[in-house]
Amino acid sequence: MRTQVAIIGGGPSGLLLSQLLHKAGIDSVVLERKTRDYVLGRIRAGVLEQGLVGLMREAGVADRMEAEGFIHDGTLIAANNEAFRIDFAKHTGTHVTVYGQTEVTRDLYDAREATGGSILFNAEDVTIHDVDTDHPYVTYRTDGQDGRVDCDFIAGCDGFHGVSRQTIPDTVRKEYEKVYPFGWLGILSETPPVDDELIYANSPRGFALCSMRNASLSRYYVQCPLTDTPEQWSDDAFWEELKRRIPEEAADKLVTGPSIEKSIAPLRSFVTEPMRWGRLFLCGDAAHIVPPTGAKGLNTAASDIHYLFEGLKDYYLDKSSAGIDHYSERALLRIWKAERFSWWMTTLLHRFPDQTEFDLKMQQAELAFLRDSDTAQKAMAENYVGLPY
Amino acid sequence: MRTQVAIIGGGPSGLLLSQLLHKAGIDSVVLERKTRDYVLGRIRAGVLEQGLVGLMREAGVADRMEAEGFIHDGTLIAANNEAFRIDFAKHTGTHVTVYGQTEVTRDLYDAREATGGSILFNAEDVTIHDVDTDHPYVTYRTDGQDGRVDCDFIAGCDGFHGVSRQTIPDTVRKEYEKVYPFGWLGILSETPPVDDELIYANSPRGFALCSMRNASLSRYYVQCPLTDTPEQWSDDAFWEELKRRIPEEAADKLVTGPSIEKSIAPLRSFVTEPMRWGRLFLCGDAAHIVPPTGAKGLNTAASDIHYLFEGLKDYYLDKSSAGIDHYSERALLRIWKAERFSWWMTTLLHRFPDQTEFDLKMQQAELAFLRDSDTAQKAMAENYVGLPY
Repeated sequence: MRTQVAIIGGGPSGLLLSQLLHKAGIDSVVLERKTRDYVLGRIRAGVLEQGLVGLMREAGVADRMEAEGFIHDGTLIAANNEAFRIDFAKHTGTHVTVYGQTEVTRDLYDAREATGGSILFNAEDVTIHDVDTDHPYVTYRTDGQDGRVDCDFIAGCDGFHGVSRQTIPDTVRKEYEKVYPFGWLGILSETPPVDDELIYANSPRGFALCSMRNASLSRYYVQCPLTDTPEQWSDDAFWEELKRRIPEEAADKLVTGPSIEKSIAPLRSFVTEPMRWGRLFLCGDAAHIVPPTGAKGLNTAASDIHYLFEGLKDYYLDKSSAGIDHYSERALLRIWKAERFSWWMTTLLHRFPDQTEFDLKMQQAELAFLRDSDTAQKAMAENYVGLPY
Repeated sequence: MRTQVAIIGGGPSGLLLSQLLHKAGIDSVVLERKTRDYVLGRIRAGVLEQGLVGLMREAGVADRMEAEGFIHDGTLIAANNEAFRIDFAKHTGTHVTVYGQTEVTRDLYDAREATGGSILFNAEDVTIHDVDTDHPYVTYRTDGQDGRVDCDFIAGCDGFHGVSRQTIPDTVRKEYEKVYPFGWLGILSETPPVDDELIYANSPRGFALCSMRNASLSRYYVQCPLTDTPEQWSDDAFWEELKRRIPEEAADKLVTGPSIEKSIAPLRSFVTEPMRWGRLFLCGDAAHIVPPTGAKGLNTAASDIHYLFEGLKDYYLDKSSAGIDHYSERALLRIWKAERFSWWMTTLLHRFPDQTEFDLKMQQAELAFLRDSDTAQKAMAENYVGLPY
């Protein structure tokens, strides 16, 4: 099989790239290790920056998002039993859209199918070959059959554990990582959200986040030790802990109910450099991970897709390799800023085991500065809605 | 001897308070452990926020500062061999004034003498009594004679090593401290400054600062290990090291010359709470220390003097104790923000021995965000020129 761009990974990054390329008349093949149902079964957050919303429009898959997504013009930051609001609309003239990542992926699958997109599911033993030549190719095995895709370029959208990043030689690859000394215990419950907007809470007992999927499906998190297990936490214990960490006013109106999902996720910052190796381009989780504070995961992937898509368009439509030649540098400049913002929000809102009393005072002073300074709020709003591409 | 306000310490804080009180018709006595010449022999930086400039005007001691001080409308931040400018005028409509702390102190001494201010020099064994009653007093010894000042209030302006803070019982006092794992090696040289504005430089070899006292007197600093001694650093070695840490363009035009002063200062963040105990009020270094990055030392003292002066005026002129009752809380809210800013600038610009490669990337990303974001520059400018009182 021959295509212009082989895309490894059928998550939202790979599908979005595939659909955008299709719209631009560029052919691609997506190789996904699992099934469509498996991919759609993954639960992920869904706070979309305007940049990603714009890409969804450009890809022609924005209709349901625009009908069902929720516009958030701000977010609440809570500390010391009081909350203040970061007004995105006032400070940036724009907003974020709350629309589950699963829904984004579903819309993209529907669009790829409707337009005859080529997606190979259950593609095992995917191996990338000859990316340091002009004739790269990908081999795989599906249903016991060996397959091969010859292509001009390979987009590695196969996540943190995928083969794409590992294909770049150790001598070239430089990895940066920070592992945070806590996790997020999260539950999903069929209850109305405690607030129309997200509440990010710094409390002496640790971080908490009140979030939602829609008007009757809430997602709540509390910071917990990495040694905890979800089984240790009864629903009652979770709700009690959450109430202790958010302002009383919010706790009083919190509607609780049985959890329909409960899990603990570790927090990590990770970046690999470069994001391009020959004709292989890394995108999204294959190249970088952010801690979820700040909701940048899917949005950093979208940022990569933007730069790669523009680069590939330049190459195929304008015969210029400038875009792909600068892909790594451009993508990384924005990624590092998103990494910084995610690290800053994580550092601002969590308790760390090795925090000194002075460190805690710095955290409180930073929260006070954010509460009292219009400029600090604007800087946060600009980052939260997404820095320009 | 009886006065309304006994002021311990004849540095700029104590003198400024004394002169302001005099202007408001409130009597004070200043007790200074050393001589006037000794106090004026101390070399300190001199970047004055508008708040302090305003207090100097209110105290009637602004003439020479306005004639001889330098207005700085911005400052330069350098990293990776390039510099960008933070434009104070554009972002805040105001500026800072470069005028040596020694000059501030001299002007205040001249004013106190001209208006018959009472200053007791060589006051040893100063002891504070009965601040938890309505009749506090201070005892001291000078020229072998014991003395006593009875008063309504005591202002502790006697610096980090003074008696005032120590007078507050350990059971009441809570101290917060961070000691940085490096020092600043500074030299003073009779050479023209390399630039009209300050240059704060982050370099792989460590922090550097190009500063000045006036058009023919420069002050330069390089970050160094705390184990270094000034004797280990020849002038040539200093200049070579400085040149390696600032952008080439600046290094090429740097005028070097013999140092007339050379010393190493440690960097520390320190705050004690509360800043009031009964009828004793701590001001300036007696209550808090900032690392010099950000030039907040004298300015945080001025901020305290502002709140205390307003409180004492309320008390004597309006018969209200609200101002002095809220002194600690109000002063500390602003102090912690200045502490945060000084800690942030220090963290942004220095190399730390325990920095991971990820931490260095966060520093670079923060510098890139500052370079590229108008809002981030505005937030820095607002802090640098001084948050509102």
